[in-house]
Amino acid sequence: MKIKEQAEENKICPLEAAVNTISGKWKIPIVWQIHEGKKRPSEFLRGIAKVDRRVLNQHLNEMVEDGILVKQVFNELPPRVEYSLTELGEKLVKILWHLNDWGKLLIHEDSKV
Amino acid sequence: MKIKEQAEENKICPLEAAVNTISGKWKIPIVWQIHEGKKRPSEFLRGIAKVDRRVLNQHLNEMVEDGILVKQVFNELPPRVEYSLTELGEKLVKILWHLNDWGKLLIHEDSKV
Repeated sequence: MKIKEQAEENKICPLEAAVNTISGKWKIPIVWQIHEGKKRPSEFLRGIAKVDRRVLNQHLNEMVEDGILVKQVFNELPPRVEYSLTELGEKLVKILWHLNDWGKLLIHEDSKV
Repeated sequence: MKIKEQAEENKICPLEAAVNTISGKWKIPIVWQIHEGKKRPSEFLRGIAKVDRRVLNQHLNEMVEDGILVKQVFNELPPRVEYSLTELGEKLVKILWHLNDWGKLLIHEDSKV
């Protein structure tokens, strides 16, 4: 809802909406971790050294709200929470692969200077 | 040079290098403006309402250093400065188109909630 409202109010273009959505400091690493098979917040915390729990939860909530992630809560003791990528999230992963390839060119380009 | 050093020191992955490189607040809008045929800093200033000249120049310098843009200085009076995309910059534009398409899905997804 947030993004739709922003798009309507400020006439932002889809590219801007996309960039805004993934620009949280740890959002791309989170997508990557889930893509690599991790599911639980505790695993993300281990995988992303510098993030703290509060920021991680905030990012996860926003990404669920934006339709990139799905949250599943299992009725167990202790309670288990898992996140997975939606179809939209999987599409983002494909673009991140392109961006990863571009990053390789960038590092290579840089080493020529 | 900066990115290469970062990549070696922190073992950052190409994706992280890519995201770091384009994460300056106005860098994607600048790439877009140049892609649309604009060349001169004064045109970028008109095209990106909220950016100030100092930040714009800083972004432009970093993007030249990273190999995304080329700066040309024409020996005229008044002096004329133009920026254009390198091959690497053109490749970034292609990925931004993918991201733009993804942004459309995102806005659409959002309107379903």
